[in-house]
Amino acid sequence: MRDDGFHVFDTTLRDGAQREGINLRVSDKLAIAKLLDDFGVGFIEGGWPGANPKDTEFFQRASQELSLKHARLTAFGATRRAGVRAADDPMVAALRDSGAPVVTLVAKSDGRHVERALRTTLDENLAMIADTVSYLREHGQRVFVDCEHFFDGYRYDPSYALDVVRTAAGAGADVVVLCDTNGGMLPDDVFRTVTEVREATGARLGMHAQDDTGCAVANTLAAVEAGATHVQCTANGYGERVGNADLFAVAGALTLKRGMDVLPPGCLEEMTRVSHAVAEIVNLAPDTHRPYVGVSAFAHKAGLHASAIKVDPDLYQHTDPELVGNTMRMLVSDMAGRASIELKAEELGLDLAGDRALSGRVVERVKSLELSGYSFEAADASLELLLREEMGEPVRYFETESWRVITERRPRDGAPLFGAYESLTEATVKLRVKGERVIATAEGNGPVNALDRALRSSMEGVYTALAGLELVDYKVRILEGSSGTNAITRTLVTFSDGTGEWTTVGVGPNVVDASWVALEQAFDYGLLRQGYPRDRRA
Amino acid sequence: MRDDGFHVFDTTLRDGAQREGINLRVSDKLAIAKLLDDFGVGFIEGGWPGANPKDTEFFQRASQELSLKHARLTAFGATRRAGVRAADDPMVAALRDSGAPVVTLVAKSDGRHVERALRTTLDENLAMIADTVSYLREHGQRVFVDCEHFFDGYRYDPSYALDVVRTAAGAGADVVVLCDTNGGMLPDDVFRTVTEVREATGARLGMHAQDDTGCAVANTLAAVEAGATHVQCTANGYGERVGNADLFAVAGALTLKRGMDVLPPGCLEEMTRVSHAVAEIVNLAPDTHRPYVGVSAFAHKAGLHASAIKVDPDLYQHTDPELVGNTMRMLVSDMAGRASIELKAEELGLDLAGDRALSGRVVERVKSLELSGYSFEAADASLELLLREEMGEPVRYFETESWRVITERRPRDGAPLFGAYESLTEATVKLRVKGERVIATAEGNGPVNALDRALRSSMEGVYTALAGLELVDYKVRILEGSSGTNAITRTLVTFSDGTGEWTTVGVGPNVVDASWVALEQAFDYGLLRQGYPRDRRA
Repeated sequence: MRDDGFHVFDTTLRDGAQREGINLRVSDKLAIAKLLDDFGVGFIEGGWPGANPKDTEFFQRASQELSLKHARLTAFGATRRAGVRAADDPMVAALRDSGAPVVTLVAKSDGRHVERALRTTLDENLAMIADTVSYLREHGQRVFVDCEHFFDGYRYDPSYALDVVRTAAGAGADVVVLCDTNGGMLPDDVFRTVTEVREATGARLGMHAQDDTGCAVANTLAAVEAGATHVQCTANGYGERVGNADLFAVAGALTLKRGMDVLPPGCLEEMTRVSHAVAEIVNLAPDTHRPYVGVSAFAHKAGLHASAIKVDPDLYQHTDPELVGNTMRMLVSDMAGRASIELKAEELGLDLAGDRALSGRVVERVKSLELSGYSFEAADASLELLLREEMGEPVRYFETESWRVITERRPRDGAPLFGAYESLTEATVKLRVKGERVIATAEGNGPVNALDRALRSSMEGVYTALAGLELVDYKVRILEGSSGTNAITRTLVTFSDGTGEWTTVGVGPNVVDASWVALEQAFDYGLLRQGYPRDRRA
Repeated sequence: MRDDGFHVFDTTLRDGAQREGINLRVSDKLAIAKLLDDFGVGFIEGGWPGANPKDTEFFQRASQELSLKHARLTAFGATRRAGVRAADDPMVAALRDSGAPVVTLVAKSDGRHVERALRTTLDENLAMIADTVSYLREHGQRVFVDCEHFFDGYRYDPSYALDVVRTAAGAGADVVVLCDTNGGMLPDDVFRTVTEVREATGARLGMHAQDDTGCAVANTLAAVEAGATHVQCTANGYGERVGNADLFAVAGALTLKRGMDVLPPGCLEEMTRVSHAVAEIVNLAPDTHRPYVGVSAFAHKAGLHASAIKVDPDLYQHTDPELVGNTMRMLVSDMAGRASIELKAEELGLDLAGDRALSGRVVERVKSLELSGYSFEAADASLELLLREEMGEPVRYFETESWRVITERRPRDGAPLFGAYESLTEATVKLRVKGERVIATAEGNGPVNALDRALRSSMEGVYTALAGLELVDYKVRILEGSSGTNAITRTLVTFSDGTGEWTTVGVGPNVVDASWVALEQAFDYGLLRQGYPRDRRA
């Protein structure tokens, strides 16, 4: 366990799960809790036991299945109902019986919400807080109090908002958390309010920020500057509406920019892995542009600066990416020079052996391909195939003789506006694989799908690992040239083999052609990844 | 033109285009500039004329094609090379000749970058700044100076960094912009530094923030609090690595939270539309969780609070979504919609005659179509066809019986990596036009091109104005949540008739199908525009 002096409190499993589109199973929540613990947070808010059966089950299973190295599990719930003793409120009993050593109680702190949403009196609300905190403390639990709508409430009636803080602290809450529930605050508002509340009450304060102004991270840091010693965050900033303060950006700033030792040793480097793994579990694509953890967070469009970056990367990055488990990437574009190609090869694990003529050839080829519409920024696998070919180790597992794709809408009555059509695509490929001529035909729901299937079926007898490869993304971009459909098309395809993904790029005047060029490379690269020996004479 | 006292300066077209994966055509840049002007920014940085042919062309075309209501166009470029007079530097000449009334010059302000990247002396760097600013001022241009790596430089050697600011201002730069180029600053760093620089130099200061700590918006606001009167932002925060300060979040905070009148009247409400339209043009899915403009930004997982929200929504939102052109959404029982459909119909010039049942039907149909993958935000022509159909005036000039598209790669020797293929597409369509059955076949360089040509040739005898219609853009997006080629495809096609453009949308599991759905509508809408009488019995 960390020192209790500063709390990194995660609420991904409770407030994060409020994000539109997230729907967690109990097993998802257990897996995420494990990851958050790897990252070294001090508290993991698991949900609201008693409010829904899934959260109740989570706490039951967590107490048996979850072995936490760093974090303590926290149950979320509300103060007792108006007019009932805490001891008689079944919702409070569910918190008491959750098995969680810590309870976070949400309390109203804006008089308007007390009267219009809770429909009780200001005094009864204070009594509800005092009674519920005392009751849970008597039963051996530690209590934090989340003051909902605190900042709006403080602006509306500071005296009542302060009464709420004093009541919670006086009843035995360890931390009183000021929540910007509607997310409308800016950092200077937060700094001023937290300072005033700290001076007026002497309570230990925490901060819970929503990101509706795009300032949740800054608001959290402003609260810490003003003396808060407890921050509530969510992985990747997931949360209701725009989201919550991003755990990783907050922990990164406190650790790397403010020198505060808020995570256990060795945990900061888990940041990128944990961020991406949580995204996978909640079934959202990892945000490529997330601070610290995004795949683009340390990506440089090289050009002019590549040689300077090679000499001194720290001149061009705000922190060392390895500290947060991320890596610097050079984006190879038509602005790239030899230096960026060399850095890129290193990143891909290819040894150019200081061959300047070789890297010069690659630069020329990249430039000429980009002129014709290619873009390697998002297609590392294509760049690697190009590098290998220039190194004299071309990767080719098959040779294409011809292919044909037919898409047909069957005769039917006129469809309505936006009507779904009955159509079918069929692709035939003719290839040479290990010296044998093969022909295969497959149906699909579009040209690329049908070609992908035909390609697979033509080779899966020879390369059985093909069954584990899956096309997971497909992008089409029309490039300037002339106009409309009479233009150059760029296609990016992304494949996965379960352990990693790779992207290839194809270009051509015909979208089907461009797709084929990218598909060929994707299969070659995938077969190389699976460890098949390269076979020049396919 | 706005008062010059505060500058909202947009650099989407220059710094925003540095985002990994964004690759703008000149026509894209012109379209985005138009949208930014609709939003009322004061300055639009269009690119670096002279550094690449595309940006040079942008400035040429902009001076002829772009009519701006609010914004002034700004050219970006560097100070002159070391050891050459500004008057003799062809890159400076390109800025002078760009036709832009304002030039933003980037200057080094961190001594380490001067010596290691620029490889010149500290004094020569100052001379380069003074000489270039003076030269452009003498030629009648207004000059802003971007001090690259300013915050790191100021930390390293405050005295030199201040010399840079004084030199730029002394030579006639209107604004000296402090850039957090590596993006590692936090708001209190920025506030302190901007305050000190303002006090030490008296120069008019601007702020350019990168988002590597997740604080770009807050850093920009902190600079304004410290006295900066010029903010550089990008639409949706697009930019290198993690991105730049988000124009919409910054303008939203200054206007709604600080009461600063930084946009012309009526522009703030354009925010959501402009944000989404820019995303469509750069071919990125609009970020659903973006402050102010995301579709989730005012979405409430209703539950407990639904009735309270109904009584008093302001208790649950930090600002009125209508002020930024967004809408509140209840995720359980959606109540929004009818009002925006009515507004849209008005915008399209259609009279719904206050028919609430009709607008209700349209809302339901739009919702159900959006559920299946449609998006009408960028496809007004499709929405108009839908509205007209619900109004009992369907627009149908022909009926489709069937079509077939064949794409074939002819037998040839194995092509090299990235080799261009010899392929051909042929489309056959069978239609009924004005009661006659017609069959036509055409070749093209891709499925959509071939279908477009076949459709034209089948009907041009009847509708001669078809010859003046041209397909000018075609976009394909694979929708989130689905995987690979086995996914839902959304296609947008844009046609022009020389006097205007219209965009339609099609959706389907098959890209060719989705394209056909969009093409059919594009032809119908185009024929309606040409004034042909609608003919239900085609």
